[in-house]
Amino acid sequence: MSTLKDVAEKSGVTVTTVSRMLNGRGYISEKTREKINAAMRELNYKPNELARALSKKRSNFIGLIVPSASNMYFCKVIDCVERLVTGSGYKLLLCTSNDETKKELEYFNMLSASKVAGVILASHTQNIDLSVAIDAPIISIDRIISPRIPSVCSDNYQGGILAAEHLIAKGCRKLAHISGSSYLNMEANKRFFGFKEVCEKEGVPYVAIDATEEQFLSMQYENIIHSLIDSNPDIDGIFTSNDIIAAQVIKICSRRGIRIPQQMKVVGYDDIDLCKFCTPSITTIHQPVRDICQRAVESIVLEQDKKGIPIRVTYPVTLVEREST
Amino acid sequence: MSTLKDVAEKSGVTVTTVSRMLNGRGYISEKTREKINAAMRELNYKPNELARALSKKRSNFIGLIVPSASNMYFCKVIDCVERLVTGSGYKLLLCTSNDETKKELEYFNMLSASKVAGVILASHTQNIDLSVAIDAPIISIDRIISPRIPSVCSDNYQGGILAAEHLIAKGCRKLAHISGSSYLNMEANKRFFGFKEVCEKEGVPYVAIDATEEQFLSMQYENIIHSLIDSNPDIDGIFTSNDIIAAQVIKICSRRGIRIPQQMKVVGYDDIDLCKFCTPSITTIHQPVRDICQRAVESIVLEQDKKGIPIRVTYPVTLVEREST
Repeated sequence: MSTLKDVAEKSGVTVTTVSRMLNGRGYISEKTREKINAAMRELNYKPNELARALSKKRSNFIGLIVPSASNMYFCKVIDCVERLVTGSGYKLLLCTSNDETKKELEYFNMLSASKVAGVILASHTQNIDLSVAIDAPIISIDRIISPRIPSVCSDNYQGGILAAEHLIAKGCRKLAHISGSSYLNMEANKRFFGFKEVCEKEGVPYVAIDATEEQFLSMQYENIIHSLIDSNPDIDGIFTSNDIIAAQVIKICSRRGIRIPQQMKVVGYDDIDLCKFCTPSITTIHQPVRDICQRAVESIVLEQDKKGIPIRVTYPVTLVEREST
Repeated sequence: MSTLKDVAEKSGVTVTTVSRMLNGRGYISEKTREKINAAMRELNYKPNELARALSKKRSNFIGLIVPSASNMYFCKVIDCVERLVTGSGYKLLLCTSNDETKKELEYFNMLSASKVAGVILASHTQNIDLSVAIDAPIISIDRIISPRIPSVCSDNYQGGILAAEHLIAKGCRKLAHISGSSYLNMEANKRFFGFKEVCEKEGVPYVAIDATEEQFLSMQYENIIHSLIDSNPDIDGIFTSNDIIAAQVIKICSRRGIRIPQQMKVVGYDDIDLCKFCTPSITTIHQPVRDICQRAVESIVLEQDKKGIPIRVTYPVTLVEREST
């Protein structure tokens, strides 16, 4: 069996360079990379990452826990995190929790057993001190889990303000807010608080309704939208806490003959691809997913070097105006 | 540091039972599971998966390579595969290749170094004999890579037949096909062949256009849709090889004042969630993603036990009629 030294000799570089490439650390030129790859192929060299990880007592896996990979917002998070993790020389272990605390704990045990370099948590897990469950840095995305676990969020409160201000500026006289998962995600509730503040300041009446957890996981909001419109036929603007709800508001308005944006204006949240693909396209609050994910991955990578990590980081959001307003 | 034996004693079960639970093999009752988890927590026992994997020369990771995690079809694949992999006691290493052969090879080296139990490939990689790159079973989803690598597909040819038959039965007189990635995925081309066969048999004229790879990766098809309609204003039915293109056809028809389904009928492909959320909702060919993913994961799991694996498996597709036809 050929060794790292054989590969280095064959490709005419040092053992350190080969090792750096295999560990994905530091810059290696494209030319050198190709020489090393060619030598590895020729010698049929298979590095053993497990042995390396065992000797360092730490693997180069990073765990990402999301409620579901089929939710379009979390898809964006997964795509972004995977690219950043791989680009930093790590590998992504993906876990979908269905927002079940029991599954989240099982994943923590599994990730702990795999000696992960860190865990990025975009799933709920309230009331659990996860830092005792795993000997690796944790960072949460868009939710605050405990005073000791760092988090990276977007400015949910400001998102609610932007949405309400926009609907009112567009002439709406009575607003509604539909929340997707207020019991799951305290951070996202701030969207409603921002919205509420503007409505009260401007003297615009509003109603607020909550979807159930079941509706959040199945993304089926049609019943609550119908009953909202039935009970409040004078509503002319709706702010939804995710874009999927906004798409369903558009569908139901179309079925009921309510014209968008003339008779009803709709603002979503997240800015997933669906917003562009819908007819009419959806005005929404853009979450800076790339910034959030980059911060999360960097936080884990920097912790390996024992660098200082901020406990709370918040990125700004923006309103993207499209056809639904 | 506490050992497996301590955990077994504390929870009143055998070492084998604890080991089976940690390895996710065989049935363990919920009650036993809780007892073992409680004992592990109390003893602060941290199993070392890496040491176990190293001694077995095989980890319980399964690699999944997709072009992108932000594409809604691949999201469904990722979600499904992750649940099945975890449910079988394995863990998912997610890799996004951007459909670049170079990135795919790098991922293969990485997965090989991590001694994965197998690789599920939903990315392209034509003309490469991957079986030499890794010492683990490979299975491809919806593409045939080499005569020696097993694949699991849906019946793309039949999908094209169903789409054309449906459009013609609904009264369309001139059809178009827009293909998303014909140069990337030979299997998906069969959708067009099935469509073409029906058109020719029924004497219905058709035009066929191909999107570029750039358009496929960015999912921006608006230009080619505009030019298709400009050059062929008499088209009254469009079959697209993915649902994202269908959503963009609907958007452009709405902008041009072409009513759907009265003046133009649209059939997509895949049956991603977008189809339900669009207004009008999209008639499409449903791919049996769960069956496909289950077959792929089972194939890798069964290979660990050296069971016989079929080389080609094809699942049937169905047409789901919605408002766009």
